[in-house]
Amino acid sequence: MPMETIRHSLAHILASAVQELYPGTKFGIGPAIENGFYYDFALPSEALAKEGLSSDDLPKIEGKMRDLIKKNITFKKKSVSEAEAKNIFKNQPYKLELINELKDKITIYESGEFTDLCAGPHIKTTAKINSDAFKLTKIAGAYWRGSEKNQMLTRIYGLAFETKKELENFLNLQMEAEKRDHRKIGKELDLFVFSDLVGKGLPLFTEKGSIIRRELERFIVDEEIKRGYKHVYTPELAKVELYKVSGHYPYYKDTMYPVMKIDEEELILRPMTCPHHYQLYASKPRSYKELPFRLAELAKQFRYEKSGELTGLIRVRSFCLADAHIICQKEKAVEEINSVLDLIEYVASALGFKKGVDFRYRLSLGLRTDEKKYYKDDKAWDFAEDALRHVLKKRKSPFFEAENEAAFYGPKIDIQMKNFAGKEETAFTVQYDFVGPKRFDLSYTDNAGQRKEPVVIHRSSIGAIERIIAFLLEHYAGSLPFWLSPVQIAIIPITDKQVKYAQALKKELRSFRVEIKDENETVGKKIREGEMQKIPYLLIVGDREIKTKSVSVRERGKGDLGMIKVDNFLERIKKEINSKK
Amino acid sequence: MPMETIRHSLAHILASAVQELYPGTKFGIGPAIENGFYYDFALPSEALAKEGLSSDDLPKIEGKMRDLIKKNITFKKKSVSEAEAKNIFKNQPYKLELINELKDKITIYESGEFTDLCAGPHIKTTAKINSDAFKLTKIAGAYWRGSEKNQMLTRIYGLAFETKKELENFLNLQMEAEKRDHRKIGKELDLFVFSDLVGKGLPLFTEKGSIIRRELERFIVDEEIKRGYKHVYTPELAKVELYKVSGHYPYYKDTMYPVMKIDEEELILRPMTCPHHYQLYASKPRSYKELPFRLAELAKQFRYEKSGELTGLIRVRSFCLADAHIICQKEKAVEEINSVLDLIEYVASALGFKKGVDFRYRLSLGLRTDEKKYYKDDKAWDFAEDALRHVLKKRKSPFFEAENEAAFYGPKIDIQMKNFAGKEETAFTVQYDFVGPKRFDLSYTDNAGQRKEPVVIHRSSIGAIERIIAFLLEHYAGSLPFWLSPVQIAIIPITDKQVKYAQALKKELRSFRVEIKDENETVGKKIREGEMQKIPYLLIVGDREIKTKSVSVRERGKGDLGMIKVDNFLERIKKEINSKK
Repeated sequence: MPMETIRHSLAHILASAVQELYPGTKFGIGPAIENGFYYDFALPSEALAKEGLSSDDLPKIEGKMRDLIKKNITFKKKSVSEAEAKNIFKNQPYKLELINELKDKITIYESGEFTDLCAGPHIKTTAKINSDAFKLTKIAGAYWRGSEKNQMLTRIYGLAFETKKELENFLNLQMEAEKRDHRKIGKELDLFVFSDLVGKGLPLFTEKGSIIRRELERFIVDEEIKRGYKHVYTPELAKVELYKVSGHYPYYKDTMYPVMKIDEEELILRPMTCPHHYQLYASKPRSYKELPFRLAELAKQFRYEKSGELTGLIRVRSFCLADAHIICQKEKAVEEINSVLDLIEYVASALGFKKGVDFRYRLSLGLRTDEKKYYKDDKAWDFAEDALRHVLKKRKSPFFEAENEAAFYGPKIDIQMKNFAGKEETAFTVQYDFVGPKRFDLSYTDNAGQRKEPVVIHRSSIGAIERIIAFLLEHYAGSLPFWLSPVQIAIIPITDKQVKYAQALKKELRSFRVEIKDENETVGKKIREGEMQKIPYLLIVGDREIKTKSVSVRERGKGDLGMIKVDNFLERIKKEINSKK
Repeated sequence: MPMETIRHSLAHILASAVQELYPGTKFGIGPAIENGFYYDFALPSEALAKEGLSSDDLPKIEGKMRDLIKKNITFKKKSVSEAEAKNIFKNQPYKLELINELKDKITIYESGEFTDLCAGPHIKTTAKINSDAFKLTKIAGAYWRGSEKNQMLTRIYGLAFETKKELENFLNLQMEAEKRDHRKIGKELDLFVFSDLVGKGLPLFTEKGSIIRRELERFIVDEEIKRGYKHVYTPELAKVELYKVSGHYPYYKDTMYPVMKIDEEELILRPMTCPHHYQLYASKPRSYKELPFRLAELAKQFRYEKSGELTGLIRVRSFCLADAHIICQKEKAVEEINSVLDLIEYVASALGFKKGVDFRYRLSLGLRTDEKKYYKDDKAWDFAEDALRHVLKKRKSPFFEAENEAAFYGPKIDIQMKNFAGKEETAFTVQYDFVGPKRFDLSYTDNAGQRKEPVVIHRSSIGAIERIIAFLLEHYAGSLPFWLSPVQIAIIPITDKQVKYAQALKKELRSFRVEIKDENETVGKKIREGEMQKIPYLLIVGDREIKTKSVSVRERGKGDLGMIKVDNFLERIKKEINSKK
């Protein structure tokens, strides 16, 4: 018995319970969904509908469902004519609307007192349901058929699993995931805010959030320069013409911001950086000696995501991508892609993400038959896909292949990051491009003096800064590694007498981010607050510490480490910062 | 005799010479200008007009002018009626057009064979002119009365001074200024480029230009953080509403990019950062304990300058301002402004700009009577202007006052940077704002628990990064200080045999930006090239240097320093970098 069927049947039982508790309810639809089910309905009396149900009502409905399940109700399927169906559902306007659209045979399911318009399948009887393994979780509003133009219905969601244990595990995981939600942590730790006046999907980073961002930005820029990238700055906007030449415009138009017409120019915010970098490359004739030409940038990009898709820092309307374009000989592409994966794995590991556990590789392929979505050049696609596959195999990197996920200009390797609840998002990508150089007529002179066409590898090493911050906050539940912590050390003087010592100490620790907690509060409260703020080290100083030039150290997650000489503590954290822990 | 009169008379002599050389020429106008004069005219025959004059013709015209001057020609002024004037200029259509617009008395000046419609004044005779102290400099096209709709005339420019020495000094200065033009240096040193496809006024920084930019950005961010600024990141765009609330929209609309309408939102690229920072401040209730609240940002800003006003990196359409807003108690404003000037003077001096020589202060005041341009609150203006004046006086900073140069929300101190040719541009500003807090309802709780309104100090410490790079390139004629040089050291192996040593050396110098010049060229050519690239140190290595673990050092501007032990050289440049030289 697939869980999906049980979940679907539970939706009917939910509707049945609602019908008994609130006679006269009008029903929408009630499908099985991932991990559970829901049902949409309009409550009967206007008064009740206005007041609505609250989560307080869920136990009562859940109880009624358990009563029904105990009755061992049978699900009976019947085929009916349109006229019969219309008669059966004569008081159910939403069902009547659905019946009018049904072309083929109409089937209904009877389960006890409740009858639904439904194609099934369903379980035979409610005996199949484990009464301990389901739970109603929340009430929400939902427009009939998902359209704002229609009436708002009430939706009740439920979870359902095979065993009570599975349900509990899922609930625990969800609770933990909620605790780790970067939006929640961002608020608790005062890292970023949104403003109605600024606009949706446009985060403003506070001082503390900006510290994390700056650390990440400098880390990646320095690392890339060390690896031979040329880090540049190019404008956030350009003439629309640029994206028409690049071929991006028709593919990305829907998520691009509108054109800004002024004087003789039509400008647009950039949705990507590639054509800008091509313009830098093309500003001079290039020789093979200059290749691979690795152009990197912390590039602001602008895409107008639908407001329903905006999610904290994960999906925003303006983001900063650690972007790069490697322009190289076709025969050097494999080597370059391999170096890119080296960099990506180094960065991921420095951030604490484990390959195979926190992320995995996806080889995203084109679809030869879709000439509208993908540039037509079968030979080039074959070559490029083989090249990417070859690199992954040679590195013995576990990966899976996904057809029809490529860019229009070539295949790519996506680094799929898994969040705590198991949901995957693309964090970084490496893309092979044989189209861009043609469109911009990029070239180099080879060692025989011949004009040759290079290929381009598009890649991101750390992804969008906004998104990686979200991943990090969730991965560490806010307890970021020492080097990324906005406040690294808090000094807590026991009384006013030690404030001067605290200030001298702060000076000694000046290459770190140190806060003195000298508010008029108890030491206990200051410690609790420091822990809530996830500060890696709390240094408590009293007279005893002053006398021995020491600090009493509390380390985040480890508690009291006892008294440590200031010099030793300094050495310890210097080591910690150098190992990027 | 003011030079202006001599210059104006020289314009007439120029016209007179042109009339003799090209009979039938139609004349436009010919005024005195800064350092010289010009005359606009249309050449007589169509053929000649089409072919035009070239700078090759200038010596001939100049010679004719000298001939005329020698003749000791007298300038005679006459009052004439409109009818007389129309008769005198019956073959001069441009003059006739001007006569039609003259309301009052019409005067003409006769000088030898040439008669001009002119109000004067002029010199008595050409004996007053020093024939050695003027020079025709260039020919350009100029529309009649400056309108594109009119005919294009030929304009000849000339310089004129009292003495030959002055003329020569000016010409030398101009030649030096041309050599120092940051657009020329930018091209020679490959620092930035423009692209027709990207758009006007939107520079793309190359690897080398980006190094300068990144060094400056990190320098200013680190310095500001050290001085108690909270460095943040806020979005480049926002809802138009934000700028309507701030009051900027009506004042800056003309240079703002157009509104982007999508879905329910109207977004616009920001022309300034203040309202964004106010939103961060207002995201929480604030206490006096948190003030002064100094928010700083490397903020991208967007203003649509007219294409005629775009100038290299000095005037662009998108720039990155080292911006900050200090929100503080009104009674703390003077102290904060003083600290800002400390910072500005520190930064200017670190970059090598001298107060009083390279820059001076301008106190830009409002105009009480202009209620349209300036927010009406006489008392607040008086207070703010006095505060700024007080700070400047107390610091004993030389400054001058300029009425009607303030922002709409308050007076400001402008730091006026002088370029090599003496032209002034505003580099940084400190502005006092009593309007912003009102418009955004900003507040703090004072130590008595009362809600109070703060003031805002807008300031920039290093100005727009683009503009300061232009200033620096011109100031140093491309020979940037060691810490800002894109390539700091070039290693030149004498033969292929020393390449390995050069590579080991590069590794040893890895905290610096080092290039190995191992192309197949002579050492002499490599040295010349290194000098052209303005590289601070060239290290020549042969067998002798290998044997003694030394390098032969050539320092930029100083030449050969002889052989130096590698360790000693390393020590020297470490010192240099720490002193930011």
